[in-house]
Amino acid sequence: MSRVVKLAVIPGDGIGPEVVAEAVKVLDAVTAASDVTFEKTPFSLGAGRYLETGDTLTDDDLSAIAGHDAILLGAVGGVPGDPRLKDANIERGLLLKLRFELDHYVNLRPSKLYPGAAGPLAEPGDIDFVVVREGTEGPYVGNGGSIRRGTAHEVANETSVNTAYGVERVVRYAFALAERRRHKLTLVHKTNVLVHAGGMWKRIVDAVAQEFPGVDVDYLHVDAATIFLVTNPSRFDVIVTDNLFGDILTDLAGAVTGGIGLAASGNINPDGAFPSMFEPVHGSAPDIAGTQKADPTAAILSVALLLDHLGLTDESARVTRAVEDDIASRDGVRTTAQIGDAIAERVQA
Amino acid sequence: MSRVVKLAVIPGDGIGPEVVAEAVKVLDAVTAASDVTFEKTPFSLGAGRYLETGDTLTDDDLSAIAGHDAILLGAVGGVPGDPRLKDANIERGLLLKLRFELDHYVNLRPSKLYPGAAGPLAEPGDIDFVVVREGTEGPYVGNGGSIRRGTAHEVANETSVNTAYGVERVVRYAFALAERRRHKLTLVHKTNVLVHAGGMWKRIVDAVAQEFPGVDVDYLHVDAATIFLVTNPSRFDVIVTDNLFGDILTDLAGAVTGGIGLAASGNINPDGAFPSMFEPVHGSAPDIAGTQKADPTAAILSVALLLDHLGLTDESARVTRAVEDDIASRDGVRTTAQIGDAIAERVQA
Ligand SMILES: CC(C)[C@H](C(=O)O)[C@@H](O)C(=O)O
Ligand SMILES: CC(C)[C@H](C(=O)O)[C@@H](O)C(=O)O
Repeated sequence: MSRVVKLAVIPGDGIGPEVVAEAVKVLDAVTAASDVTFEKTPFSLGAGRYLETGDTLTDDDLSAIAGHDAILLGAVGGVPGDPRLKDANIERGLLLKLRFELDHYVNLRPSKLYPGAAGPLAEPGDIDFVVVREGTEGPYVGNGGSIRRGTAHEVANETSVNTAYGVERVVRYAFALAERRRHKLTLVHKTNVLVHAGGMWKRIVDAVAQEFPGVDVDYLHVDAATIFLVTNPSRFDVIVTDNLFGDILTDLAGAVTGGIGLAASGNINPDGAFPSMFEPVHGSAPDIAGTQKADPTAAILSVALLLDHLGLTDESARVTRAVEDDIASRDGVRTTAQIGDAIAERVQA
Repeated sequence: MSRVVKLAVIPGDGIGPEVVAEAVKVLDAVTAASDVTFEKTPFSLGAGRYLETGDTLTDDDLSAIAGHDAILLGAVGGVPGDPRLKDANIERGLLLKLRFELDHYVNLRPSKLYPGAAGPLAEPGDIDFVVVREGTEGPYVGNGGSIRRGTAHEVANETSVNTAYGVERVVRYAFALAERRRHKLTLVHKTNVLVHAGGMWKRIVDAVAQEFPGVDVDYLHVDAATIFLVTNPSRFDVIVTDNLFGDILTDLAGAVTGGIGLAASGNINPDGAFPSMFEPVHGSAPDIAGTQKADPTAAILSVALLLDHLGLTDESARVTRAVEDDIASRDGVRTTAQIGDAIAERVQA
């Protein structure tokens, strides 16, 4: 009995198409002998499409994408400062729109220091944690505005919107994950300053903790959390945090675990009402686009998260193991395709 | 002709009194032979005072403090989770209230890796930058609220308020500082998500840059900035950023330059309408209070910032040099007082 997975593929801009090509190569390799077939539909979206057509994400794009089982995304975003993109906000209009419209309330970002990966810390210790970043609320809601724009009397506000509904569901997911891992959950917020939003997060974590008596709960202010990420990252197991704090912490976490060339992420709708979307944490890096200098590992590890999400746990583990082996044996400079080839070969071995 | 400086001293809670004692010791030593006299008025404020009297910061406290020329603060905040402090918010009611009421719009936080100081980075390079954090706006304004608190339908909002007036003055200060330093200014924000606030910051930086043609201007999203702080911190000279991003970046910066035991700060009102306030970046650390384990260096370097602010540049430089020499010759464990004594001796030598 064979299974067909409908996969929407959004290569995007800059290095996106290059890393996605390798990710698809590995996906094909790991599923070649299995009874799962990935039916891929490419979607041309991003700064390139915007420059050609003026569209960021049309309703038709969105509903076509929503009809798939999962999404693989490379990276989107044009050259910084490109005057033709001045009025485009590809991030808000495309990437964040997908996350919000497809209700990706769990932004899952594992951080692991693989043997052989070189990070900036002198004594990194054993780093292996997951950030569960809320994906559909907080300061990302786009609830801002300004008056007297461009004058000396301008006022520009941004409102972070947080709901018990939205916080509870992501907190519950994080607890369940901690229970399957090392039973430790750290809430990161800034409760002493953002008393309303932070207070609600704290109360909800304390309430849900009652249902997970086996999970140790800890709290850190976001500023203190950044300190521990560089002085003692091995203290973390599962971190649950808001959309903006999660954005900041996961870039830093990526850096301490060998660079964002290795950091994968999943934008997950755990309810299955919408397809989940998997993407490297890195951006489109237009400065190195087309040069085969990008590391496709983050995109390939995103495929591992995708396979796991689809219940293809063996395939997922094979991809992860292949990446681990590849990282452990790295030496010398390789092209994007050479890294992809090496990992694809390992998954088939 | 002798000058008298009226100094308000707020030792605060936890390790605050211990580190302030050493800071005052060094202040007295460096001014002993000079023609400046510091007239010190202690203010008992913090969690301790709140527990005794129920007061956080009365109007009388505030106007008495405002009548001084400068303020030295240790750290405030009780034992986390103390049920008696459940309804107190010492941070908002005291520390942030002082910053806001005394219009401390420049929160100045230098980060320097002193020879001998051990940070977590394997190859830190030559770290020497200053974060100019906005101190009176942004997500810190306390402009939040919630409805249906404690129910499944709770909504908790926090509004970041930003004004052209508030942003321009701090940006101008940062440019002037960059001009006296290595002529490089980096704006850190999250313009791709917080388009209204971020857009205004960006436009104001671009406008003020016209007046400072000798300063190179750079922009980083806050997430990317955390990456550079651990992979290439020497790229920074002056960073200008909003209140919350500045809070996060400076804790991380403190960590990479040897720990927040060394990180000093000034809450400055450059107009001189109100006294400026100098404090270590670290908190009250109640777990080690009274044990003489705290490092008073951050408080002592805050005295150097204070002296500089008052125009006592020679005295400031002597304190900084004494601290540098002390750090370079550190070995073995010393008590809080021993470190203070050693630095006080050096400033007199
Ligand atoms: C591109 C940007 C909108 C995005 C974010 O802030 O979420 C990115 O930084 C990320 O972390 O995926
Ligand atoms: C104690 C807290 C309110 C404060 C802040 O967030 O500004 C502290 O973290 C700091 O950086 O001085």
